[in-house]
Amino acid sequence: MNVNGKPYRTIWVNGEDDKLIQIIDQRWLPHKFVVEDLRRSDDVAIAIRDMHVRGAGLIGAAAGLGMYLAGLEANRDSINPEHFNQLLRNSGDKLKATRPTAVNLEWAVNRQLDGLSGLTDSIIKVRQLFQEAGKIADEDSAYCQSIGQHGLPLIRDIYDGKQQAVNILTHCNAGWLAFVDHGSATSPIYAAHDEGIPVHVWVDETRPRNQGARLTAWELDKHGVPHTVIADNVGGHLMQHGMVDMVIVGTDRTTYGGDVCNKIGTYLKALAAKDNNVPFYVALPSSTFDWKMENGMDTPIEHRGGDEVKYIQGLNGEGEIDRVLLTPPNSPVVNYAFDVTPRHLVTGLITERGICEANSDSIYRLFPEKRA
Amino acid sequence: MNVNGKPYRTIWVNGEDDKLIQIIDQRWLPHKFVVEDLRRSDDVAIAIRDMHVRGAGLIGAAAGLGMYLAGLEANRDSINPEHFNQLLRNSGDKLKATRPTAVNLEWAVNRQLDGLSGLTDSIIKVRQLFQEAGKIADEDSAYCQSIGQHGLPLIRDIYDGKQQAVNILTHCNAGWLAFVDHGSATSPIYAAHDEGIPVHVWVDETRPRNQGARLTAWELDKHGVPHTVIADNVGGHLMQHGMVDMVIVGTDRTTYGGDVCNKIGTYLKALAAKDNNVPFYVALPSSTFDWKMENGMDTPIEHRGGDEVKYIQGLNGEGEIDRVLLTPPNSPVVNYAFDVTPRHLVTGLITERGICEANSDSIYRLFPEKRA
Repeated sequence: MNVNGKPYRTIWVNGEDDKLIQIIDQRWLPHKFVVEDLRRSDDVAIAIRDMHVRGAGLIGAAAGLGMYLAGLEANRDSINPEHFNQLLRNSGDKLKATRPTAVNLEWAVNRQLDGLSGLTDSIIKVRQLFQEAGKIADEDSAYCQSIGQHGLPLIRDIYDGKQQAVNILTHCNAGWLAFVDHGSATSPIYAAHDEGIPVHVWVDETRPRNQGARLTAWELDKHGVPHTVIADNVGGHLMQHGMVDMVIVGTDRTTYGGDVCNKIGTYLKALAAKDNNVPFYVALPSSTFDWKMENGMDTPIEHRGGDEVKYIQGLNGEGEIDRVLLTPPNSPVVNYAFDVTPRHLVTGLITERGICEANSDSIYRLFPEKRA
Repeated sequence: MNVNGKPYRTIWVNGEDDKLIQIIDQRWLPHKFVVEDLRRSDDVAIAIRDMHVRGAGLIGAAAGLGMYLAGLEANRDSINPEHFNQLLRNSGDKLKATRPTAVNLEWAVNRQLDGLSGLTDSIIKVRQLFQEAGKIADEDSAYCQSIGQHGLPLIRDIYDGKQQAVNILTHCNAGWLAFVDHGSATSPIYAAHDEGIPVHVWVDETRPRNQGARLTAWELDKHGVPHTVIADNVGGHLMQHGMVDMVIVGTDRTTYGGDVCNKIGTYLKALAAKDNNVPFYVALPSSTFDWKMENGMDTPIEHRGGDEVKYIQGLNGEGEIDRVLLTPPNSPVVNYAFDVTPRHLVTGLITERGICEANSDSIYRLFPEKRA
């Protein structure tokens, strides 16, 4: 999507130096736009671990490119084909260890390793790693774009009915910054905006990490999509007063039964949407389905460090990024990162193959090959 | 309640100088405990306007004492009884103008003016103003204490059933810092704690002004009540997992029909409580009932400045209170201060006369003299 009129992805190979990976370093958004150079697979591991890049799709693409850099290193340092493979596996293990709960990380590393089977020449292996990394990134972008095309008619229908800007509420960042491009929840929004349908996005700030206020607001602003940042407490009031036409959120894991695990607070918005007859959609590439779990309440919920609640980062009066303490120093805090929205609160799931209902029958109808 | 083991009110007359009013200056909590001296009625007006003191009950008490200081000034400056009254009315108008939507402000000023009818001697008038100010503060404290006694059995019953700490979720600050003492929502909690019933409070941080993280957490910490600060997004997840036994919140206005206007986000917690069969109580002195409004959706909702969303105040690494920018500088924000929780989501109203249901029949049964 666009940043100051120039199209960007979240990660790319430099156009003049194909041994240089570049990323938008998201730690400094929205206050500073920093492009970071990654030249070693270790640089990629650090970028994932320390959240210079985050989001399921983007982590997978970064791991794919990290394996390509690992291939370049193995080509330089190995003494024979078996040694090459060993060095590559070591780099893959390092990448996998950076954020052990991210499904896409392991998936991308394994896909790269599997792609080398039968190859012996290290130059050809490196070329394969390069091409496969590109495929991983392109597929991620293409799936997100398909989500946009399938979600677009939902927005167009609302616009056709009211002939005024369509108000869409979203929570957290399921935007292009979480993927390679387009995003999941934002993809139908960008598609509508780019087609000239007037849209306006209510952006939940999404405490405690403020991914909405920091990332979603930034990317909507840069692409020129009208939006308003709100405290997480506000959405219910807006829905009571007819100021939200639909909700679209992303998800970190959706069970094949249709329960949606997403950023903490999603459940509260889903309750309010139900109470006010506002359609509540979840956008996801099919890689986010958990085909082994039926009941969302079985999802293990990540319990993150308390400092994310006690402290907050922002730009101080001197233009420096600083953090401040919000609570009494003694007060305990707790930081659950996700909650589960039960299927009966979900109007529909927007996937790269189309829209289905949040139940196993409807999901399997779209993905019949997953019925085991 | 206690601060470091010493009992405090939020506002008081200095024990050695009865012309000196003192307050806890709440702007610096939880990071600094500052007692501010108020010697002129203008000092009180500034303290109310700039939110050194806030909360319905406390604003009323402050206005009452401000009128006493105004009486001292009128006694010094007036040339005759009529001039005294004129000066006093001028001061009253100034106080009323500080926060025009605060019902208790006008009420306290008028109560002070009405109390002078029939009096001519300015010394006697000043004495009357002093005594009435004391009554206003004492009544506020006593009403809150009664709320605590009526709410206490609800907590005791839960404890008797589970024989483990009772988990109570609250939103915003309806604590003693919002009144003269005890608070409304916190009063049953303090009563239970002081009686030895183990309680634990989930404190919603309450964006955007963070009254929970700043004030409720501070006062619970200082009084020694176990508590945990959470982002506003977390309550639904806690309720889904049986970690909340009851919710108690305050209110800024409750209609005689039983709809509850309170800090933005209250409605979302009420929805989650209903969805998970968690009792949802609202604690209020009867002065908070709006006896003229039936439908809460008619409540005008205060629309506050956007900087409260864009910026946040906290303690920086140098130990100074600073504010930081959270959003992209260009992103619009909106800041609705309150929402309305419909009566059907409310389990009961805890008042100084006892507990009633959130409907006009039950409310009037407790306050029959209000049936007009």
